[in-house]
Amino acid sequence: MTISEQQKKDIEEEKRKSFSTKRTSVDSIEEKLFTINPVLDHGFIRVIDYMGDDSAIVQAARVSYGSGTKKSQDDNSLIRYLMRHWHSTPFEMCEIKFHIKLPVFVARQWIRHRTANVNEYSARYSILEKEFYIPEEENLASQSSTNNQGRGETLSSSESQKVLEILKLDSDRSYRNYESLLSSDGKPGLARELARMNLPTNIYTQWYWKTDLHNLFNFLRLRADSHAQYEIRVYAEVICDLVKAWVPSAYGAFVDYRLNSLNLSRQAVECLKRKLSGDVVNYEDSGMSKREWEEFTKCFEMR
Amino acid sequence: MTISEQQKKDIEEEKRKSFSTKRTSVDSIEEKLFTINPVLDHGFIRVIDYMGDDSAIVQAARVSYGSGTKKSQDDNSLIRYLMRHWHSTPFEMCEIKFHIKLPVFVARQWIRHRTANVNEYSARYSILEKEFYIPEEENLASQSSTNNQGRGETLSSSESQKVLEILKLDSDRSYRNYESLLSSDGKPGLARELARMNLPTNIYTQWYWKTDLHNLFNFLRLRADSHAQYEIRVYAEVICDLVKAWVPSAYGAFVDYRLNSLNLSRQAVECLKRKLSGDVVNYEDSGMSKREWEEFTKCFEMR
Amino acid sequence: MTISEQQKKDIEEEKRKSFSTKRTSVDSIEEKLFTINPVLDHGFIRVIDYMGDDSAIVQAARVSYGSGTKKSQDDNSLIRYLMRHWHSTPFEMCEIKFHIKLPVFVARQWIRHRTANVNEYSARYSILEKEFYIPEEENLASQSSTNNQGRGETLSSSESQKVLEILKLDSDRSYRNYESLLSSDGKPGLARELARMNLPTNIYTQWYWKTDLHNLFNFLRLRADSHAQYEIRVYAEVICDLVKAWVPSAYGAFVDYRLNSLNLSRQAVECLKRKLSGDVVNYEDSGMSKREWEEFTKCFEMR
Amino acid sequence: MTISEQQKKDIEEEKRKSFSTKRTSVDSIEEKLFTINPVLDHGFIRVIDYMGDDSAIVQAARVSYGSGTKKSQDDNSLIRYLMRHWHSTPFEMCEIKFHIKLPVFVARQWIRHRTANVNEYSARYSILEKEFYIPEEENLASQSSTNNQGRGETLSSSESQKVLEILKLDSDRSYRNYESLLSSDGKPGLARELARMNLPTNIYTQWYWKTDLHNLFNFLRLRADSHAQYEIRVYAEVICDLVKAWVPSAYGAFVDYRLNSLNLSRQAVECLKRKLSGDVVNYEDSGMSKREWEEFTKCFEMR
Repeated sequence: MTISEQQKKDIEEEKRKSFSTKRTSVDSIEEKLFTINPVLDHGFIRVIDYMGDDSAIVQAARVSYGSGTKKSQDDNSLIRYLMRHWHSTPFEMCEIKFHIKLPVFVARQWIRHRTANVNEYSARYSILEKEFYIPEEENLASQSSTNNQGRGETLSSSESQKVLEILKLDSDRSYRNYESLLSSDGKPGLARELARMNLPTNIYTQWYWKTDLHNLFNFLRLRADSHAQYEIRVYAEVICDLVKAWVPSAYGAFVDYRLNSLNLSRQAVECLKRKLSGDVVNYEDSGMSKREWEEFTKCFEMR
Repeated sequence: MTISEQQKKDIEEEKRKSFSTKRTSVDSIEEKLFTINPVLDHGFIRVIDYMGDDSAIVQAARVSYGSGTKKSQDDNSLIRYLMRHWHSTPFEMCEIKFHIKLPVFVARQWIRHRTANVNEYSARYSILEKEFYIPEEENLASQSSTNNQGRGETLSSSESQKVLEILKLDSDRSYRNYESLLSSDGKPGLARELARMNLPTNIYTQWYWKTDLHNLFNFLRLRADSHAQYEIRVYAEVICDLVKAWVPSAYGAFVDYRLNSLNLSRQAVECLKRKLSGDVVNYEDSGMSKREWEEFTKCFEMR
Repeated sequence: MTISEQQKKDIEEEKRKSFSTKRTSVDSIEEKLFTINPVLDHGFIRVIDYMGDDSAIVQAARVSYGSGTKKSQDDNSLIRYLMRHWHSTPFEMCEIKFHIKLPVFVARQWIRHRTANVNEYSARYSILEKEFYIPEEENLASQSSTNNQGRGETLSSSESQKVLEILKLDSDRSYRNYESLLSSDGKPGLARELARMNLPTNIYTQWYWKTDLHNLFNFLRLRADSHAQYEIRVYAEVICDLVKAWVPSAYGAFVDYRLNSLNLSRQAVECLKRKLSGDVVNYEDSGMSKREWEEFTKCFEMR
Repeated sequence: MTISEQQKKDIEEEKRKSFSTKRTSVDSIEEKLFTINPVLDHGFIRVIDYMGDDSAIVQAARVSYGSGTKKSQDDNSLIRYLMRHWHSTPFEMCEIKFHIKLPVFVARQWIRHRTANVNEYSARYSILEKEFYIPEEENLASQSSTNNQGRGETLSSSESQKVLEILKLDSDRSYRNYESLLSSDGKPGLARELARMNLPTNIYTQWYWKTDLHNLFNFLRLRADSHAQYEIRVYAEVICDLVKAWVPSAYGAFVDYRLNSLNLSRQAVECLKRKLSGDVVNYEDSGMSKREWEEFTKCFEMR
């Protein structure tokens, strides 16, 4: 990861700052402010700012004049109740801002979450640095044969070598050509807004990304899930740790009622009820499709 | 304005708090945190929390590792440039949260700004207090004869007296009947979610309202405008003062490029060019509708 | 319900129209276009326009050049798969527009769904008609003693009479006074934007409301639920019928995977697994709160 | 542009369809439905569906029971009034859906408009076709020396040749390597979600994109502007033509009050007033920055 000396200095300076504030503050996230959390080979996540904490959720739910209740046990119960019953607006009262460095193909997935605020590094305006995502060998996998949008077996060592060689050579060459396009013999060349199109999507970009807690949980539910692509999931996992430090009650409720919860269809509920009352339940009378039935029985280890 | 002793104590407690933070902080808004800014007869606006300052706009626009530039003059120029050229995302990097008490009919206009986060006091869950907006005599005006959605002349004193009497009597009676619906002879009565429907829309409600600076400026451009209804404009004006204390550069740019700017149509631009070159410009060859032409000539005092 | 002769004529004229279009069309919803579906005592829902059908969901999910597949069975399976796995964007490709008349206190709940487009009748600009929601006796209930935001027992007949008398008298009087405020002795009076504040929230308003299918399902999941307030639920139920006629596959998936689905927490899944494997499961070792445990055992009739 | 025989057949089939509908319909856009409007070398825009027309804007603004007024002149005046006074919700009542093929670097700019609905072709799920944007020689320009995010002079012929050679060679090679990554010797290779990262951003992607008219105008104001990057501007210009055919009144108002309008700052308004009253106005007493002053005087040809 390339962080220039000036950037390191800037970050250190930010971390040394200390202001006095009346605002809700959380020690365990203050500690992590501005720090670089490395992700993948050149990426990172930094928390830049935050607004609110667990008590701010409670405060808004109660439209109260002070902060949350004095008894944090009550706050925790209320937060779990709100999450369980799909209340969303109190969680929107907390806000967090990240500085993130990530490969362009990951950024393309990420940006589909439309409810966040984003400022991305502009390759129309500035020159991109020579930083490309080259996967670890252990993360190279073949196309899944059962899931059209997933990975199957890890590649053999020789296959991996071949893949890595292609990725590295093409990254190098495209960047060298990007530089040639931008200028040759010291003379200015093609406009940056055009030259950038020669770069592959494993190049890194960066952005400021700010969102509220409710929408962040929606992001995490999809992207920290085991079916998410590995390269975005590792970002989501780092964010999970940061959110846990920031709003531990809300995060706990999210883990229990969203991330590790199970949504049972009307048919699945019926099957379970019958099963619990002693009935034998079969695919044929389940009302489910073959695929649903398999997911269902696998989950409850019914076979 | 009814603030209970407990509420006063809660507010005082919030104001006495002091945390150490590394986050961007602004002294001139810290001072105003939690304080009640009265609006209308029973309403108020309180700043509960904020994220970012002028430098956070610059930091995001530049996707920088530190905060804004060292030279605040550069920051100010950049902020004005961004506003002038309709960049919106950097302004979204600042966030503010208010606790607001306001009449229901004002809340109904306000909520049409959809990009904010809101938690409103629930009259399904709780009992509303007896607080109704009764206008000052000087703010009672007749229907405008030229503008279908505006006010004309101030009412005469006798007319005002009659109006105020009606409003007061109906507010009192409806609230007394609301109480009767909720319980009679000490026995619980009609469900709160039903009883509330008897209350007129000059009753006060309250909410937590959180928004980013870009969307707040959109709100202020419409609601701090002279054509906005007086009862929402006074809230917008209080918010203007608070925003000015919080992000003075961005607020200055907003005032010059939005609030007090003028949007000239293609036709108006042509007329002005001709006028400046010495031509005589008439309604007939202006390409404008009668109403536009009147607005235009009035603005430039052409007659 | 007051529909003027002119309005009836306008509606009839709309219904007689017939254009030739290449756009995706659905006979079963065409039949219902513009028709008044009565709700409550004076309210209604009318479908004004729609875009897309079940095949448009499939078409977008596949980014195809034609419409959905030829085999509608495949389309149905794909739609159910998309719903089951929380894909949202394909459902956003269908859009529907309603004209709705509803009491103000219902409109206030409704508008909290922020992702729709809305144009409401303006009481700043126009005079509201004398139409107030007066509940049926059977829908008058006391405050629930267990659920702070719900209803308990139906009121006794004498209690109901008293309630209805209050609501009717106050509605009448407030409207009469609204008229006096607007003008007296034939002279124009208070501006409409002020006079309206005297009206209680059981008065009817109306709006055009347009939304995409994904966000409409979010609305229906909350508002067609048994915990929703009766007065908004009846609107949601009418919409359910209309959506079923318009996009039967998507609606079927919604009913099975959202409306009648069950979201099991991590703890509940564990308890079910243990139970299915023959263990005895108690509240004490369930990891659930008392309230959750009760909801859980009630659902699976475990006692 | 590669359109397979099957795709051509599918498109022809769509165009032959004819349904009878009661919905608002517009002949001049019906004609253009499903047709491929070519953009750049391999891109296109197709209108897939639409909802509403000019009269639907009026209908919603008036919350009327029928469609817009009978006299279309009145409708046009109202639409221009709404646009001039920044009313946004009536324009949201019209909706349009496009199928668009565009280079990835253009898609990355485009997606920043967050208020639209999007389904993009998935390169996790499917294999991208070998179609890369290679600019016309006349559109190759050097970096602007005055505008950090713009183009300056057109390249010389020899420079252009060099640029085009690099772009073509790198596109070819990266695609060949993409194919090698996906499979070798007939054996399945790297997962598609990984292999795609080797492709440069001048490769074409495609999506279904649906938005309402208000937000579409926001998009067009920025992207049909002369400062927009050429490669997105040409898409915006095609959309302008389509919108003009669909809602001519609203489009006319957009052109006059947004696209070709001028937003004058408070300071610029003051300068103009002084100038019109015969004063000499200089940069020094204009209250503008150097850059603003230059933009201002250039616009009104004051020198």
